Amino acid sequence: MTDHALPEAWRRGLYETISRRRDMRSFLPDPIPAETLARILLAAHQAGSVGLSQPWNFLVVENRVVRAQVRAHVEAERLRAAEAFGQERREKYLSFKLEGILDSPINLCVTCDQERFGPAIIGRNTIPETAVYSTCCAIQNFWLAARAEGVGVGWVSILEPAALRMILGIPDRIVPVAYLCVGFVESFPERPILETKGWLPRLPLHEIVFHDRWEERPRPDLLRALEMSRIDGEQATPAPTHSAEGRAK
Amino acid sequence: MTDHALPEAWRRGLYETISRRRDMRSFLPDPIPAETLARILLAAHQAGSVGLSQPWNFLVVENRVVRAQVRAHVEAERLRAAEAFGQERREKYLSFKLEGILDSPINLCVTCDQERFGPAIIGRNTIPETAVYSTCCAIQNFWLAARAEGVGVGWVSILEPAALRMILGIPDRIVPVAYLCVGFVESFPERPILETKGWLPRLPLHEIVFHDRWEERPRPDLLRALEMSRIDGEQATPAPTHSAEGRAK
Repeated sequence: MTDHALPEAWRRGLYETISRRRDMRSFLPDPIPAETLARILLAAHQAGSVGLSQPWNFLVVENRVVRAQVRAHVEAERLRAAEAFGQERREKYLSFKLEGILDSPINLCVTCDQERFGPAIIGRNTIPETAVYSTCCAIQNFWLAARAEGVGVGWVSILEPAALRMILGIPDRIVPVAYLCVGFVESFPERPILETKGWLPRLPLHEIVFHDRWEERPRPDLLRALEMSRIDGEQATPAPTHSAEGRAK
Repeated sequence: MTDHALPEAWRRGLYETISRRRDMRSFLPDPIPAETLARILLAAHQAGSVGLSQPWNFLVVENRVVRAQVRAHVEAERLRAAEAFGQERREKYLSFKLEGILDSPINLCVTCDQERFGPAIIGRNTIPETAVYSTCCAIQNFWLAARAEGVGVGWVSILEPAALRMILGIPDRIVPVAYLCVGFVESFPERPILETKGWLPRLPLHEIVFHDRWEERPRPDLLRALEMSRIDGEQATPAPTHSAEGRAK
């Protein structure tokens, strides 16, 4: 077996970044240096894409009037969504800060062009949504690179795509996949905010992994390894000894 | 401005991993140690999800008869998709190896339960697809962690969700988002295979970033920084001097 594992320090960097990434709602107003933003965007652009179609665009939204329009739409959607919850849960929901559209120095709309490079793309025939899936992979890269640079990202998902298209002049054929608030932050919380606030628990990893068929339990060795996996607030995934032992077989 | 950037070595680890991740088609048969697979799955499970809904499941497919069924379906779809290309492009398309379903030691079906934790989830009211978007973020985490561990991942997208549901016993309400081949590899190519084979070019980053409105060019400082961004085969994103300078402002 050829060993192409990356050096221990690099692996640690990846796992620590993954573990410390948070969905942020509060931001500092300080501008993001252009070089920093360019590095984060380049990380996004290096995501894999179906048939190398690179279907994404990144629309940096800085103008405050434009952002105020987006925010007004989000606020309307937030109140509408509150109706889906029972009373107790609704009050809790309404107490959450869900976005930092105007607090953050920039917003970013990440879009997907499902027809980039024409209709025939390797792997896109059977499932057209694959282009959107690729775009989400780019967003995750963006999120991780931002965290590594100390930049917070908050994904605002209570938005109608049609409203975003109108406000930002996006053509009908383009899917606005994500609207992100992006900026430096006072601090990154140790755990996801919704977990700390008792909204929902983290699911144990061993309960969501199956083997060969839906709902069949994993094999004993994998099950044991999954049960031993822990997400701690600060500590990243790998146990201190993992590097040697896991690859020695 | 509070500086929460991660240490230089960790950042480098993230950027190097992002830069070296590849969509793989050929695999070694060696089994993946359970501890390694558990670490990669835990990285996936740490992705952000809309309202902390964690809508994903990970179905490890090892049984060769089951995998042969999946492969037969993919082969049929591959030949069907070939009809979408003109003759020259079609021959090239058919010459590509598109999957390693039986070569790799395991496959992984990543699914999305859009109703996990009930119908009312923060942020999922306006766009139900956000649960699928979250699942794609988990897949990108999986892909990066696998690369860091020296494990290759190939996303097979020419599959009908209905066929996967039938073969793997997945309920109708669950969306099979990705079917991945997972295993160690002989080597990771320096550049994406479809780029090297002249199928499609990489898009210049500065052409896909807009400012405030669709198709408006970025501000001069960001434009310059984007133009200077380069994806090299081996070298990761940041220029050697990036750490100090970008954050000094």
